Amino acid sequence: MAAALIALDWGTTSLRGWLIAADGAILDRRAGGPGILAVGDSDFAGALRSFVAGWPDLPSIASGMIGSKQGWIEAPYVACPGGFADLAPGLSTAPGRALRVVPGVARQVPGLAPDVMRGEETQIFGALESDEASGLFILPGTHSKWARVASGRIVSFATYMTGEIFAVLRQHSILGRLMAADAMPDLNAAAFEAGAEVGLHHGDDLLHRLFAVRTLGLFERLSAADAPSYLSGLLIGAEIAAALHRESADSPTLIGARPLCAAYRRVLAAQGIESRIADEDVTPRGLWRIARAAGMIG
Amino acid sequence: MAAALIALDWGTTSLRGWLIAADGAILDRRAGGPGILAVGDSDFAGALRSFVAGWPDLPSIASGMIGSKQGWIEAPYVACPGGFADLAPGLSTAPGRALRVVPGVARQVPGLAPDVMRGEETQIFGALESDEASGLFILPGTHSKWARVASGRIVSFATYMTGEIFAVLRQHSILGRLMAADAMPDLNAAAFEAGAEVGLHHGDDLLHRLFAVRTLGLFERLSAADAPSYLSGLLIGAEIAAALHRESADSPTLIGARPLCAAYRRVLAAQGIESRIADEDVTPRGLWRIARAAGMIG
Repeated sequence: MAAALIALDWGTTSLRGWLIAADGAILDRRAGGPGILAVGDSDFAGALRSFVAGWPDLPSIASGMIGSKQGWIEAPYVACPGGFADLAPGLSTAPGRALRVVPGVARQVPGLAPDVMRGEETQIFGALESDEASGLFILPGTHSKWARVASGRIVSFATYMTGEIFAVLRQHSILGRLMAADAMPDLNAAAFEAGAEVGLHHGDDLLHRLFAVRTLGLFERLSAADAPSYLSGLLIGAEIAAALHRESADSPTLIGARPLCAAYRRVLAAQGIESRIADEDVTPRGLWRIARAAGMIG
Repeated sequence: MAAALIALDWGTTSLRGWLIAADGAILDRRAGGPGILAVGDSDFAGALRSFVAGWPDLPSIASGMIGSKQGWIEAPYVACPGGFADLAPGLSTAPGRALRVVPGVARQVPGLAPDVMRGEETQIFGALESDEASGLFILPGTHSKWARVASGRIVSFATYMTGEIFAVLRQHSILGRLMAADAMPDLNAAAFEAGAEVGLHHGDDLLHRLFAVRTLGLFERLSAADAPSYLSGLLIGAEIAAALHRESADSPTLIGARPLCAAYRRVLAAQGIESRIADEDVTPRGLWRIARAAGMIG
């Protein structure tokens, strides 16, 4: 089958790419390219040339922070609610090469702070069962997103800083001092669930409950190895409680790294909410769908 | 008046001292000594000798992290509820010199994580109007404490990680990247109050609301100079809401750095709660009261 599209997920710290046929089949895949912070002298054109070397010269599309102010070309946010039809005209073209860049999505509602995503919109569109599908999508991570899709359009979403708060507390706060040194040890299910239970029911008391990570350690009721699991559960529990206060969670779809999605799935299940985990090719599929909607695939 | 006591506040990053008469009058004061982390080779005896040089050889008492596992001598926690009568027998004596060290206080309630303080108990006793006084005491800071005192005894307390969360988010998270570089610019009252309003009413949604510090900046609705004030208000508002859920706040006393106490006072006042700010000599007064209860003052 002939290749028809080069699709790129170009984020702050990584660059992945796929060679895709007109019908969406993935023909080849590459990872390990430089994230935008690692591209020297802003030579994005050179970085891209090296990364796609050997692939045919084809229409190319990228999503992620490559379209931010710190990236190659700023692709201004498209307004939420928005779907393919709104994203496609918003594609920006990088100078000197026919790389189209997917815009992020901004939600601005009177009386609320704005919210933004950049890259997640593509994953969400890739996870949709059809161009007109609806559902709730949860993208756990540094800045977790909960997004509501109706008839193929993102109609609302909210960001939770769960992953970043975990990382800064782990690396830079007193809570990290009692933790094991491994970057991320295996999750201890019991410690995670104990933390999640507290987070789910006492999310309004998070500034206090976080201190338990230290005091449980001081009194030898939580080991250094298990403390990261407890902290992770506490934060994820608080995120899920806050999000469920905002959204009715009818069979949400989880998108992201499998162990993290599995952890969310477990907490949701304990709340009586069955979720499914999307497959790992949502990004190339989303890029292909957006490219198709934009008429980039002949 | 003759000096009767040397009182020391010996914390992680600072050492202050006072020369005190038998009736509690402060005769001399010193600051700028080395915190426990800055004492080389664990030579606490040498550090103390240099710091008190020129003062008479007198009974000496210290509170703070000097009594922790990382300090000179570990003064095991006294159980909460506890007052002078419980602290005095808990004084530990540093080896080779008659320095008595005030124990911290631990609260252990079945079904809850333990909580601890070390140093704040001394400030609280120093702020009491009499040995038998009652009241609610709020000690804002890195690890804020809200402590209930009844008849001179600390009967319950809770720690909130407000100040540390502010610091790690400011220094190490994406929220700090849009902030002005000054370590701590002057508080912008409007930005602080806007943040506090959100924190007070949406403390159960903190992981999401924190992201507003970034998005309000992205959309130029919050300046780099004002962002720290907004973040501070958001966290302090969430702390106060959580604490008021736990405690009825009848005319609390604030103990700590004056600008921070004033910020708390403003948020409490907006909730219809009048508070007073304790004077700045609560620590030497507390040390003197504990020393007196321990029979150290002849």
